[in-house]
Amino acid sequence: MAAKHENPSFILNAIKDVVFEDRPIPTLKNPKDVLIRVNVTGICGSDVHYWEHGRIADFVLTKPMVLGHESAGTVVSVGPGAKTLKVGDRVALEPGVPCRHCPYCKSGTYNLCTDMRFAATPPYDGTLAKYYVLPEDFCVHLPDHVSLDEGALVEPLAVGVHVVRQADVQPGNSVVVFGAGPVGLLCAAVAKAHGAVKVIVVDIVQARLEFATKYVATGTFNAMHSRDPKENAKEMIKQFKLGFGADIAIDASGAAPSINTAIHVVRTGGRYVQAGMGADEVTFPIMAMCCKEITVKGSFRYGPGDYKLAVDLVASGSVSVKELVTGRFKFEQAEEAFKEFKKGQGIKILIDGPLD
Amino acid sequence: MAAKHENPSFILNAIKDVVFEDRPIPTLKNPKDVLIRVNVTGICGSDVHYWEHGRIADFVLTKPMVLGHESAGTVVSVGPGAKTLKVGDRVALEPGVPCRHCPYCKSGTYNLCTDMRFAATPPYDGTLAKYYVLPEDFCVHLPDHVSLDEGALVEPLAVGVHVVRQADVQPGNSVVVFGAGPVGLLCAAVAKAHGAVKVIVVDIVQARLEFATKYVATGTFNAMHSRDPKENAKEMIKQFKLGFGADIAIDASGAAPSINTAIHVVRTGGRYVQAGMGADEVTFPIMAMCCKEITVKGSFRYGPGDYKLAVDLVASGSVSVKELVTGRFKFEQAEEAFKEFKKGQGIKILIDGPLD
Amino acid sequence: MAAKHENPSFILNAIKDVVFEDRPIPTLKNPKDVLIRVNVTGICGSDVHYWEHGRIADFVLTKPMVLGHESAGTVVSVGPGAKTLKVGDRVALEPGVPCRHCPYCKSGTYNLCTDMRFAATPPYDGTLAKYYVLPEDFCVHLPDHVSLDEGALVEPLAVGVHVVRQADVQPGNSVVVFGAGPVGLLCAAVAKAHGAVKVIVVDIVQARLEFATKYVATGTFNAMHSRDPKENAKEMIKQFKLGFGADIAIDASGAAPSINTAIHVVRTGGRYVQAGMGADEVTFPIMAMCCKEITVKGSFRYGPGDYKLAVDLVASGSVSVKELVTGRFKFEQAEEAFKEFKKGQGIKILIDGPLD
Amino acid sequence: MAAKHENPSFILNAIKDVVFEDRPIPTLKNPKDVLIRVNVTGICGSDVHYWEHGRIADFVLTKPMVLGHESAGTVVSVGPGAKTLKVGDRVALEPGVPCRHCPYCKSGTYNLCTDMRFAATPPYDGTLAKYYVLPEDFCVHLPDHVSLDEGALVEPLAVGVHVVRQADVQPGNSVVVFGAGPVGLLCAAVAKAHGAVKVIVVDIVQARLEFATKYVATGTFNAMHSRDPKENAKEMIKQFKLGFGADIAIDASGAAPSINTAIHVVRTGGRYVQAGMGADEVTFPIMAMCCKEITVKGSFRYGPGDYKLAVDLVASGSVSVKELVTGRFKFEQAEEAFKEFKKGQGIKILIDGPLD
Repeated sequence: MAAKHENPSFILNAIKDVVFEDRPIPTLKNPKDVLIRVNVTGICGSDVHYWEHGRIADFVLTKPMVLGHESAGTVVSVGPGAKTLKVGDRVALEPGVPCRHCPYCKSGTYNLCTDMRFAATPPYDGTLAKYYVLPEDFCVHLPDHVSLDEGALVEPLAVGVHVVRQADVQPGNSVVVFGAGPVGLLCAAVAKAHGAVKVIVVDIVQARLEFATKYVATGTFNAMHSRDPKENAKEMIKQFKLGFGADIAIDASGAAPSINTAIHVVRTGGRYVQAGMGADEVTFPIMAMCCKEITVKGSFRYGPGDYKLAVDLVASGSVSVKELVTGRFKFEQAEEAFKEFKKGQGIKILIDGPLD
Repeated sequence: MAAKHENPSFILNAIKDVVFEDRPIPTLKNPKDVLIRVNVTGICGSDVHYWEHGRIADFVLTKPMVLGHESAGTVVSVGPGAKTLKVGDRVALEPGVPCRHCPYCKSGTYNLCTDMRFAATPPYDGTLAKYYVLPEDFCVHLPDHVSLDEGALVEPLAVGVHVVRQADVQPGNSVVVFGAGPVGLLCAAVAKAHGAVKVIVVDIVQARLEFATKYVATGTFNAMHSRDPKENAKEMIKQFKLGFGADIAIDASGAAPSINTAIHVVRTGGRYVQAGMGADEVTFPIMAMCCKEITVKGSFRYGPGDYKLAVDLVASGSVSVKELVTGRFKFEQAEEAFKEFKKGQGIKILIDGPLD
Repeated sequence: MAAKHENPSFILNAIKDVVFEDRPIPTLKNPKDVLIRVNVTGICGSDVHYWEHGRIADFVLTKPMVLGHESAGTVVSVGPGAKTLKVGDRVALEPGVPCRHCPYCKSGTYNLCTDMRFAATPPYDGTLAKYYVLPEDFCVHLPDHVSLDEGALVEPLAVGVHVVRQADVQPGNSVVVFGAGPVGLLCAAVAKAHGAVKVIVVDIVQARLEFATKYVATGTFNAMHSRDPKENAKEMIKQFKLGFGADIAIDASGAAPSINTAIHVVRTGGRYVQAGMGADEVTFPIMAMCCKEITVKGSFRYGPGDYKLAVDLVASGSVSVKELVTGRFKFEQAEEAFKEFKKGQGIKILIDGPLD
Repeated sequence: MAAKHENPSFILNAIKDVVFEDRPIPTLKNPKDVLIRVNVTGICGSDVHYWEHGRIADFVLTKPMVLGHESAGTVVSVGPGAKTLKVGDRVALEPGVPCRHCPYCKSGTYNLCTDMRFAATPPYDGTLAKYYVLPEDFCVHLPDHVSLDEGALVEPLAVGVHVVRQADVQPGNSVVVFGAGPVGLLCAAVAKAHGAVKVIVVDIVQARLEFATKYVATGTFNAMHSRDPKENAKEMIKQFKLGFGADIAIDASGAAPSINTAIHVVRTGGRYVQAGMGADEVTFPIMAMCCKEITVKGSFRYGPGDYKLAVDLVASGSVSVKELVTGRFKFEQAEEAFKEFKKGQGIKILIDGPLD
């Protein structure tokens, strides 16, 4: 790391080639921008994917890029137009700033912005640095009793909030979530906070299901993938007394057998949300979807109000995120943290921001 | 046909085994029932499918069944509780009567009823007979200037109405319809009546596209299926100046290449409705659906208000259905009509009701 | 009361003229009907209103009528078509049976049925009797751990469920409820169960506000009606840190000052639901409603799924109703119960069903 | 007017005190801004109201302000970030630019922006000048066959579009519009373009109703205000065969008798939109609204997509606006135009932009 330690940053130069570098402290460009000292950052699968593969879909690393986008921090300076934040405020960082001009931004779907600047998505730098700049409206103030660690976990929680809103989970609903990774678990937790009375988590790793039970699930199902998706679905409907089927299925696995089981487990007139990334194409039971008039939606990042609601859910105790933290590393150990992530044992790993 | 000709009926005994039989005139069972003299009936692909295969999905012919379900007729007697119809009224017949008690019926989705009695879906008799009984609320009165032929065409039109409502077509939208058969054409017509400004019809048969242009399409596209769905989609977006893509795609073909092209031609944040029956499973671009946050819906038959709106659209001149009629047979020629249908040359074939 | 005690019933003959009469046990008319032994019934303001005034709006008592409509009971016989209930099942009774044929019934709004048969709304008899008949789909099965008393309270709770659904309360919302009577309190409780983080209850009786605080409110406000509605609204926004205003206001008072304060306390783009009955006309701040684009809705009884959700909320512990019971009378004391109600001290009074 | 005529502007100094003044040509402040030569401007009641009263509600003239906000013009220069427009493009000017940062802007309701800069609403200058600056996304390109006059009329048309969208007019609906001024007429036209089959226009001036009939109404009703609103509503329901009542009522009058008649003419479960400005408070039939579960909404200016759809409706011929022009003045005659407007004889008066 550079001598001066002005703005130490964890940078991906190329596949598996990371360095610590001291970059200039970013400047405030717009009147409503604020400068944030990053206190803690969670690792996301996408960070690790760039580290390993240098690309995700059409986003390709072509020049060095700071990694990280799940962060909380402390405001250290504010632009002249910022009205809602002041120096010292602790905030969760919403890491994608849309263009505010395109039809998507203007019609309430800025997550679909055609000109999004998203942290640690090439070519935009991420938050694994000492400082980061955001417009104040992309920072959510953390109440005193919400920790910075929880603030960092607001990012994956906001993903879950968006999924659950896409699914339109209502009180009394039954919800089946496929995949017990961080997103699946948080979808389950948010669904419960929306009043779902049955929240079934499905996975193929028993330890994950046990965690899900302790965490939030009202039931779990170990999908024996040798069985037919239709059979798995029937078994679940019977076991969990789902009547015509589940009101809602959420796939947070991206796996074809899960997706197929999910469509079959949903009741006629129910809803399905694709939350997990996987193969571009899958064999899909389209006639079951059609004849049951299932509403199928995708979920991409988070949009208006999602980050705010995520903080509210944590603040009110409706969703607990602390127990998802299974590892913690110093900033200088960031690469070790990535390696630990790759082992796939834990759920969420945090990296502290650089010290002075 | 029987000597007395009380209620001559066209009956499917088994695969490719049809007979004319004189059955008793059906009786009114409920106070709001009415007895209808059937004047004209259109042939639907499903009638032909039962005739050829004896089943559709889980619906299997196990005893003789009257065919036909696209009918218009004249009220000949009314139950004591019927208030909205009188003898002599000309009506379009909505051919599926739901249970009225299940959660689907009660929540505004009776087309999803768990105990539906649908004409010419085993084991329920259809409308290719002299008489048919329906509750008055499943008959839609035809204004004087709407013909009985148009009344029979209300059935496939109501299918199109339901699809377009599932798609939530709004004024100004661009809509791409895959498949230029009766359902596709009627979806296109209804989309236009909902204010769609671009209505592109896609097929692989040039003659059908030419008909679509004369009928209602603002543009047509011959999908060369040797090309990749993504390429076809790009080509369409360019050719028809669809900007980010089409607001809405409707698949009325059931063909995998169409379904894939449709997902790729829809803009981020757009909508897709599966209207056509095809293979149970298809290879499906689920990540494109997910990342573009496309809303995908099925469409199954028709629900509250669809039949009424279909009649209104014809009555107001917003949708024209007459030109879809490409063949006409006497009741006694019903089997010839089915054989003509199988040739696949025309669009809609009508069969007159039995004469006295 | 008659000697035989076959079906003892509490009957309103005319204003303030009630009698106990032994009526025939009602018979099952439709295959899905069930006969219920009524175990407990709550008194509603409308029962008392008929007792005192003989009418509500256009509903006028013209012949003797059994009172009561908030009941739970036990199934004692079932029709041949009933599939979901059996003798001995404990059920909450949804007391209004719609026609199932009108456009409202068929489009998911049976509470707006044009031919509703509602218990204790002239000319239909109510449930303050030993026996009552309902179709099985208007009975909601009570889980073992839900008491019959709670079952009777499901009726006002379902009113609250319908109001909150009309208001579309979402997690994170702030909700202000005007009126701390049973309906207001239950609206507040249901709003909280839907994830509202601020639930402010407003009344002019301090004791009611104290009850509201103990029960469910996160804050209360004693509306000093000498103050201007706008001033009251401003004060509330400041006191409860409502930002642009409350997301949602619910009026369960019917009082003009409440209605006006409510419109002013709602934020731009917020929602307002009229839940309480009052004067036919009020002076209304229509320009504030217009320029803030507030969505204003009425709420009338309960519709599809409301009763079921009400039972679910009690069963899951999301809403507690027991503490609302402030009085209990034997069947023979029904008139005393009505007199007690009139004192206006308690919240909900229950009357036990007739013993053998 | 100043000698140089660089940017001649029509300025309101104080009540009834207007002057022509030569102001500097405005500069492009943001990369996506464009400079527009204003070609034509319609007069709106609000312009006239400021001229007469110096204020509307809380918006008070405290310094000289250019009037006018219904304009079309030609792009004369573009900022470096503008991608969709080029010099020479003819555009309709959406005259309110929101902050793009507040929750309303970000959630798809920028018309409710808390920091809106709206032309000719104090303290922001309007468009009755030679030049005006807008970000490119608030200019809608006019196709060649749409005239600049039509482009100016897009502003009131967009008001109508927003109203009709708030009302959620669907094909087959019956719509009653109260008030046959420009906004009422345009609401009627847009409702028809959305597929409304009955569009009834109500006014108390017979000549206006005759215009409405020629323009777009399927029926008109002269509301004799001596009659009771309920009686007027009954009469309309009978005369226009509205069944349970109109699906939708739109008040574009702001008059209490209209508002009351409107609530009574709407069917149970129908919708009402307040489109017209009037007294802050009216006596309102709140119990009818409540028991009929009418959805009541306000409509304020226009939001995402409204301006674009307005241009599309004109371009496709779905709505015709030319015949609304009943007067035309040169820029130098602007004050005369205002005086003509005050006579209340015509519908829409246009003022040409300043010549060179």
